[in-house]
Amino acid sequence: MNREMMIENNKFDLRSLNKFASVMAQGNGYLGLRAAHEEDYAGQTRGLYVAGIYNKATANESSDLVNLPDVLAMKIEMDGEIFSLLTGEVLGFEQRLNLETGELVREILWKNKAGARFQLVFQRFAAKHHLHIIASKVTITSLDKNASLKIVSGISAQQTNFGRQHLIEESVRVFNEKIMQGVYKTTESGHLITLAAQNILPEGSVISFSSKNRELMSSIKKEIKINEPFVLEKIGSIYTSLDQVLEGDDPEHSARNALDESVQYGYQVLLNKTAGKWKQFWNQKRVKISSAHEFDQTAMDFALYHVEIMTPAHDERLSVGAKGLTGEGYKGHVFWDTEMFILPFHLFTEPETARKLLRYRYLHLQQAKEKAEQTGYAGALFPWESAFSGYEETPEYAAINIKTGKRQKVASAIAEHHIVADIAYAAVQYFQNTNDEVFMKKEGLALLKDTARFWISRAVEDHGMLSLKDVIGPDEYTEHIDNNAYTNYLAYYNVKQALFYMDWFGEYDEWLSVRGKDFLERLYLPKPNKNLVIPQDDTFLGKPEIDLSIYKENQGSQGILLDYSRQEVNEMQILKQADVVMLLYLFPNLFSKDIVEKNLHYYEERTIHDSSLSKAIHAIVAARCGFLETAYRFFQEACLIDLGPNPHSSDEGIHGASLGAIWLAAIFGFANAQMDEDMLSIDPKLPENWSEIVFPLVYKGSRLEIRLTHEQAEIIKLSGPEVEMKIKNKKHRLKNKIEVKFKDCFSECEVQE
Amino acid sequence: MNREMMIENNKFDLRSLNKFASVMAQGNGYLGLRAAHEEDYAGQTRGLYVAGIYNKATANESSDLVNLPDVLAMKIEMDGEIFSLLTGEVLGFEQRLNLETGELVREILWKNKAGARFQLVFQRFAAKHHLHIIASKVTITSLDKNASLKIVSGISAQQTNFGRQHLIEESVRVFNEKIMQGVYKTTESGHLITLAAQNILPEGSVISFSSKNRELMSSIKKEIKINEPFVLEKIGSIYTSLDQVLEGDDPEHSARNALDESVQYGYQVLLNKTAGKWKQFWNQKRVKISSAHEFDQTAMDFALYHVEIMTPAHDERLSVGAKGLTGEGYKGHVFWDTEMFILPFHLFTEPETARKLLRYRYLHLQQAKEKAEQTGYAGALFPWESAFSGYEETPEYAAINIKTGKRQKVASAIAEHHIVADIAYAAVQYFQNTNDEVFMKKEGLALLKDTARFWISRAVEDHGMLSLKDVIGPDEYTEHIDNNAYTNYLAYYNVKQALFYMDWFGEYDEWLSVRGKDFLERLYLPKPNKNLVIPQDDTFLGKPEIDLSIYKENQGSQGILLDYSRQEVNEMQILKQADVVMLLYLFPNLFSKDIVEKNLHYYEERTIHDSSLSKAIHAIVAARCGFLETAYRFFQEACLIDLGPNPHSSDEGIHGASLGAIWLAAIFGFANAQMDEDMLSIDPKLPENWSEIVFPLVYKGSRLEIRLTHEQAEIIKLSGPEVEMKIKNKKHRLKNKIEVKFKDCFSECEVQE
Repeated sequence: MNREMMIENNKFDLRSLNKFASVMAQGNGYLGLRAAHEEDYAGQTRGLYVAGIYNKATANESSDLVNLPDVLAMKIEMDGEIFSLLTGEVLGFEQRLNLETGELVREILWKNKAGARFQLVFQRFAAKHHLHIIASKVTITSLDKNASLKIVSGISAQQTNFGRQHLIEESVRVFNEKIMQGVYKTTESGHLITLAAQNILPEGSVISFSSKNRELMSSIKKEIKINEPFVLEKIGSIYTSLDQVLEGDDPEHSARNALDESVQYGYQVLLNKTAGKWKQFWNQKRVKISSAHEFDQTAMDFALYHVEIMTPAHDERLSVGAKGLTGEGYKGHVFWDTEMFILPFHLFTEPETARKLLRYRYLHLQQAKEKAEQTGYAGALFPWESAFSGYEETPEYAAINIKTGKRQKVASAIAEHHIVADIAYAAVQYFQNTNDEVFMKKEGLALLKDTARFWISRAVEDHGMLSLKDVIGPDEYTEHIDNNAYTNYLAYYNVKQALFYMDWFGEYDEWLSVRGKDFLERLYLPKPNKNLVIPQDDTFLGKPEIDLSIYKENQGSQGILLDYSRQEVNEMQILKQADVVMLLYLFPNLFSKDIVEKNLHYYEERTIHDSSLSKAIHAIVAARCGFLETAYRFFQEACLIDLGPNPHSSDEGIHGASLGAIWLAAIFGFANAQMDEDMLSIDPKLPENWSEIVFPLVYKGSRLEIRLTHEQAEIIKLSGPEVEMKIKNKKHRLKNKIEVKFKDCFSECEVQE
Repeated sequence: MNREMMIENNKFDLRSLNKFASVMAQGNGYLGLRAAHEEDYAGQTRGLYVAGIYNKATANESSDLVNLPDVLAMKIEMDGEIFSLLTGEVLGFEQRLNLETGELVREILWKNKAGARFQLVFQRFAAKHHLHIIASKVTITSLDKNASLKIVSGISAQQTNFGRQHLIEESVRVFNEKIMQGVYKTTESGHLITLAAQNILPEGSVISFSSKNRELMSSIKKEIKINEPFVLEKIGSIYTSLDQVLEGDDPEHSARNALDESVQYGYQVLLNKTAGKWKQFWNQKRVKISSAHEFDQTAMDFALYHVEIMTPAHDERLSVGAKGLTGEGYKGHVFWDTEMFILPFHLFTEPETARKLLRYRYLHLQQAKEKAEQTGYAGALFPWESAFSGYEETPEYAAINIKTGKRQKVASAIAEHHIVADIAYAAVQYFQNTNDEVFMKKEGLALLKDTARFWISRAVEDHGMLSLKDVIGPDEYTEHIDNNAYTNYLAYYNVKQALFYMDWFGEYDEWLSVRGKDFLERLYLPKPNKNLVIPQDDTFLGKPEIDLSIYKENQGSQGILLDYSRQEVNEMQILKQADVVMLLYLFPNLFSKDIVEKNLHYYEERTIHDSSLSKAIHAIVAARCGFLETAYRFFQEACLIDLGPNPHSSDEGIHGASLGAIWLAAIFGFANAQMDEDMLSIDPKLPENWSEIVFPLVYKGSRLEIRLTHEQAEIIKLSGPEVEMKIKNKKHRLKNKIEVKFKDCFSECEVQE
């Protein structure tokens, strides 16, 4: 057991209930399971989600990732007293998520009101070897007396998304006085969901079943003897009509069949199978950091664990929600987060998954074209938020305007168009890594052409130049501005790459080629001003500034919106998150070092980092500039977004993009890997605290292991063809292994191959 | 303050949370408010209901009485610690519902984890002087130190009916940085609901507003000084589109106007107004019992309090749900409970309310006719369960069949037809009391004729007689039987009364008259067998018997269904509730005394009393038989149905019919009042423990006060014309007052007039 691969919670605290339920969530890309306690607490959000199962509760709301019926809650009564950590006395409490095996364990020593002590151990996992299986186990030992035990548990469809109910209870049924089965249907999207669950009972216990008010419950009773552990296992399975398309059999049969099989194995065998799958994952993808702070390793493992369980690698019809499958924040919607923050990990460790995520966009080109047409543009305008249908899912309203008392409209769906170019950028990245011509010719080119068409149609003439007006860049505190630097440069790249790959594959489209060339010639690309600052947009640099220090102290809370309306924030030099800095991250060679440094400094000062997408990006750009201390501080702060002390940081789910960006920071920042001139380049910028980083990288079909210290780089090719690469700007050809010593070798380094 | 008019709970116990939330519920016939605590607890069901606001969550479910957005919850933080009775230490807890004023008060002395003590007093009421207003108040005193206080409270539409969400959030808004307003619409029935709420803040507190996830919240912060009470009042108002029909203005304006007005008054003035209305109620309707057990008085006051708050006397489009407006049991549906158990109280204290309840049925004659037609019958077949639409609302399924694992169909809608005759019976009662010819000629006759038509069409020939086959009588443990005695006698009465009143009003209908006469001549009316037992139905007396003692010990729990399937129970001599005994109650003179006694004894032995409609009816029949001890025991047990020690007796709401029947037991049992041969008759059968009972009675337009002891009767006419009446079988004419001494006067009593 690796201590650093353990996420621990050693204190039961009501305030952090939902934080830990998110942070310790389990899953497998198919389903996600919040780490809500078995016993109920007021305000505790339980959650079981299946990727792709969205629904609109009512016509005027956008789709929710549906909070599915619960199979993990247990009402435990011992000697007639309901077990709760809020009653009696908690003599011991320990909760551990084992990232190495995927198992969540909670150990409790509890004294009831009458003074009798009980030990309770709860275990559970979402199977990784079988995407549809959830297994749980409770072990109860009465330490002071014989006791009567009653456990009520089953399938409860009383779950809602904060009051929004998405499911019709189609039927509930008990088979063979053993298997509980509930069949549900989403009210609007029409998905069918079957949940089945079965208890594995200890000898001598008595079970009965009941159904009422959307619950199908089993009630288990047993007289337990002092010091004789009572062990109850409960296995659950879930299938939906989405699986039917993939796997053929209907959800009800599939669920019962999977359950039958799994019940034969029992908890421990199932756990072994799942732990084996996790072992494979870590063997293939773990980033090993030798740091003075052990927490850096934990944070990295935690990030990869979550990136793994949030990604529906099994089904290209789906993508990654902003909170993965760990909570209902952002309603489970898919943003640019996927392409910019999460996809790179997959691209450089398992490109096939990156391909599927791009396929998700390709499969929804039609809906993006419809959105473009409806808004008066050509090509494809991808929705700011999307779900299963591929249509725009951004909610209409956000918070109440403190001045007018009315809810404020969300502008992102109307103007945050950079997502279009972000998707195009990801498609090019995919090809640059994989050389997958099959994909690029079909899906890649289709994506590039239609996104390019969009930008060309969106540009307007302005003093002979072309402008992109009324947009929102990544910095969402600055809305409805013209010529956002990030957006304009990305749009330029988008059109340029479209023309490049059309040429590559010998495609010709007169409108695109002619208009595209004109677009590239005339699009206004903001240049650094006399102070070397790249204007974030046409008006930004002329706006007044205020002291942001108090807001920076509470970054992530959006506290500024309690003091200023959005309109007021919009009229000041205030950034929510990296914007120009994001651009500098994506295009390291676009500007000279002094300009990069200047802009990093200028914009960071004005950035509250209220978005979790900000810190790690700053870390990367700072690392590349050689500001290692600053970079490391940003990295550490990014690692605390979910794992820090704020008890409410992650109530509605972990920060998917931020976790993806922890990997980005290590690999693209500190290891400073880049795909440079179609060649892999490594130019390490390790923080002082790190003595070594070892990580896998898949590039052009070769699987590499890269080991970097302050003194040397060692690169081993584990499989695949030879690789041409640069290390510290010097070219090498990697046959099997390269070792480069950095000491005193600024001009020429010793190489052992 | 009358001590016996206080319902008290002196112990905070998680198990009885929902029981007390029902028992201490408040309301005014327009709205009902569960006595859920301001702070949240797992498993606590909050509830605000408005009479008539039903909705079908999905097409395959029947209507729910909608659990509306909450305005009473408060999240209280003191020095950063969330207030909960499960944390810190509870040094004092007292909760009191004052039946005299309608106010609920909760006083708590609480020590937080850091050891600082706080006194919290919560007060609230549903206004009786203004049906749309809810007022609440919290007073917090820090006893050991200055402290920082934060209270979050607002309008939360996260409420569901056990997971079923009925409301679309149409809009939320804050007016003038003060008034919170939420507008909601039911998804299927299309009712609009507006809730508005405003805090009345103490000086120096800071308020902010937010809206998210179906909640519109205000957050109030204040630094409080040691021993200086912090007082926060919150007034809420609610209007729906049902009111718009009645009152004209739209719900939004009505809600804000009512709120504006009420906020001017503040909590205490509003409470005084409401208490004044309650004083009027008690002056007019209270039953005063001088008993050796003070609890008898409390139980009676409790019963009348609830009958008052459950009855939507303001709106004839509505009737009374089985749980009133105190919970979601039976989904808020209207059963025969109204006509048989609740209407009599109104009829004999405020006949106009009884008339409105009958108007509810009249207004839904069309739907009853449609149901009859759909099932192949003539006339009107009233639904077993109804809501706002008047259509059948009985859920399709009940509990899981323990043998087959499938849910069992509910048969009541198909066969429990006696409700048709129950409604007819109530209409006749109404006329016998009021002589309201305007009603009887129109609504009464329409009800009588269409219900009679139904019975005539429902009867089938059987050996020359007419039978009513495949019915369910009041005893729901015996289904699908032929010639249920209760049903047949009631049907006979129904047809007879229809013909009688047609004759009275000179109406003629050939089909009805001819077929009706034939029906009366040939309908089989079960007669006592050689053992004097009236067969409950054609097969009942031939069925096997089992020992019911263990089930009788847990009566009300339906525990027998855990051991036997419904089919098995059906094949034994097991009654859920009064059936033949119910018949004997309704028609005291139908059988001779020895037959009544025999049947009371025979059937009681076989009755589990799993229905709350059973005990009080047995009390009445026993009292009339002179079995005073037995009668009193039944009465006492009936009083404990909601107020007894079972912590879960009333989780989903109080037992409306049972509470109505407590009044029935006192008035029709112990006082033994009857409308006999169109004359009021009193023949008291007071229990040993009761030295006196004083109660009002409205009869033929006269308002009487009746005072009965073991020794004498004193009857005062407070208003109205002279009344002819019998006391102990001797006729009297009541001009102003009669006093009758019973002592040694079995043949002739001394009368002072």
